[in-house]
Amino acid sequence: MTDRPAAAQGAFAALGAQVAVITDPANRRWLTGFTGSSGLVILRDGVAELITDGRYTIQAQAEVRPGVRVTTDSRRTAGGLGEHLAGHSGPVAVEADHLTVAQMADLERDLSLISWVTTRGVLANLRAVKDSDELAAIRQAFAVADGAFGELLPEVQPGARELDLALSLEGAIRRHEGCGLGFESIVVSGPRCALPHGQPSGRQLAVGDLVTIDWGATVVGYTSDCTRTLAVGQLQEPGRRIYQVVKAAMEAAIAAARPQTLGKDVHAAARAVIEAAGYGANFVHGTGHGLGLEIHEAPALGARSEDRLQVGMVVTFEPGIYIEGYGGVRIEQTGIITEGPVEILSGLPTELQIC
Amino acid sequence: MTDRPAAAQGAFAALGAQVAVITDPANRRWLTGFTGSSGLVILRDGVAELITDGRYTIQAQAEVRPGVRVTTDSRRTAGGLGEHLAGHSGPVAVEADHLTVAQMADLERDLSLISWVTTRGVLANLRAVKDSDELAAIRQAFAVADGAFGELLPEVQPGARELDLALSLEGAIRRHEGCGLGFESIVVSGPRCALPHGQPSGRQLAVGDLVTIDWGATVVGYTSDCTRTLAVGQLQEPGRRIYQVVKAAMEAAIAAARPQTLGKDVHAAARAVIEAAGYGANFVHGTGHGLGLEIHEAPALGARSEDRLQVGMVVTFEPGIYIEGYGGVRIEQTGIITEGPVEILSGLPTELQIC
Repeated sequence: MTDRPAAAQGAFAALGAQVAVITDPANRRWLTGFTGSSGLVILRDGVAELITDGRYTIQAQAEVRPGVRVTTDSRRTAGGLGEHLAGHSGPVAVEADHLTVAQMADLERDLSLISWVTTRGVLANLRAVKDSDELAAIRQAFAVADGAFGELLPEVQPGARELDLALSLEGAIRRHEGCGLGFESIVVSGPRCALPHGQPSGRQLAVGDLVTIDWGATVVGYTSDCTRTLAVGQLQEPGRRIYQVVKAAMEAAIAAARPQTLGKDVHAAARAVIEAAGYGANFVHGTGHGLGLEIHEAPALGARSEDRLQVGMVVTFEPGIYIEGYGGVRIEQTGIITEGPVEILSGLPTELQIC
Repeated sequence: MTDRPAAAQGAFAALGAQVAVITDPANRRWLTGFTGSSGLVILRDGVAELITDGRYTIQAQAEVRPGVRVTTDSRRTAGGLGEHLAGHSGPVAVEADHLTVAQMADLERDLSLISWVTTRGVLANLRAVKDSDELAAIRQAFAVADGAFGELLPEVQPGARELDLALSLEGAIRRHEGCGLGFESIVVSGPRCALPHGQPSGRQLAVGDLVTIDWGATVVGYTSDCTRTLAVGQLQEPGRRIYQVVKAAMEAAIAAARPQTLGKDVHAAARAVIEAAGYGANFVHGTGHGLGLEIHEAPALGARSEDRLQVGMVVTFEPGIYIEGYGGVRIEQTGIITEGPVEILSGLPTELQIC
């Protein structure tokens, strides 16, 4: 088991702080194992101390990783830090990309002897490269998600409501103890496929529709992320063509994703395929993102991303083409960056499936 | 329909800013009607301008309230504000309780001519008092939630798994188009009732168990919030007694909740009942909270809350007693503050139900 507090402490020490206060929920969970909604972590002397409130005392003691200390304090905000850092006068790191302006002002008022070191992305960068426990959880999440999709497929028929398909898919995931949903499932059909982030509606599937399903399962907090676009009955143009363009763009992105490659270059590989086919204006988002305890985390695979891929990162490849009034296609694979080709995590086919 | 941008503009103007940048998601939705996960709002000249990215262009145009302008900009962060406020040199309000330290630093770097006014709780305070559209949505959310609980009751039997009860309850909510879950349902039984925020597990109900169910439905984003603790077969002590203590505490809090009362005084009313019964140490959280677009919003009904109740606020009353190793009881009603008695929103009984 990786000593995450030690790794984190080293990263903050390199920025001049021997003590750090962690407030971001995903970072809190990564450091301590605690899954509750409230609490902060003080990191010092290589030890993580979780400060949470009375609603979570029992739960926190049961959940924390070895070596993590649990303290209960009913003041849930960063402003309650006063006595936990009383007497401390050196530099203390905070997470500038999570702490609010108000929380920072309260800390500066309450703990005026401390010199605050505002850091960005320190734990996000550590979390981007997954350890073996994390990869195992993500693999399990994909196994559950693939299985649930397999159970759903027979229900993808003319007349089925988007909403009921989403409920079936989610039920098949959640019946597994310890499994949750990584995010609100997207199930859109027909013209609603033009909504990259559409929510399932009461619309009924009809012959000739495209159906886009984007879903994720979690295992011990780690999420899968997968998208498939299916056809209900025979698919007409432009659906057939845009499906092939999106699939080729996704494959180009996967082929480009080697260690040391920049996120923007992976995106450019997908974008080039879609632009060459004349659909550049219909690809309205980035190509992918890292995932783990959060559905969107480092690295980014988008037009401006200078993030550099490393072995052990887990990233999505999910180009799409969206045509208002007609519909759209998105296909998404997720894989682990290795020294060789990307290791794809879903076992589901990416060829067009006719339901 | 309330002119929310005008009301907000007035509140920020009173703090010296004729322009405000809104980044909090619930505030963004309240001002504009937009339900997506990404975007910010510039408020000036009484008009709200929503800036979102390409994934949401179609959706945003369909969702926004009358008078709201939609602009697409692929830079999703507050750092992308530069050109939208270019040339502006007066004071601009930001939400200090949402904007991060990093976002603030980027704004100060990119827009050095602006004097930033850091505000706290401006829109949260406006949102705390609900208008008639909001109250209608909350009433519908309770109707859906009550109905789903009624469908669930026959399944609350020895042998049923917590997880399957949660899935049934949530399915009954989500089958209604446009309805979602306000939060992850809590279904805990037996000793797990000692976890105020426990997640449903694979544990099977047994005769003699208490079962605590805490769930919420949403209608157009507004959530209900309700908790009932049931008994599976005949209930022994101390369960019977703590049920009556918690119920009396809840009723005391409801009776105390009149306009102008402070949140801490409502909490004190509940706490006094539980302390008098000897369970003070087992009541480990506040008595309640406001709810609306968020499951926890202003006002707070806790030990240190100086929030003052006003007509039109919607608040929960949810004391609990938790005994590690045994279990616990929480009962929750939600009501609207009126000139007279609180108007309770759930039609479900609060007497102990034996399943």
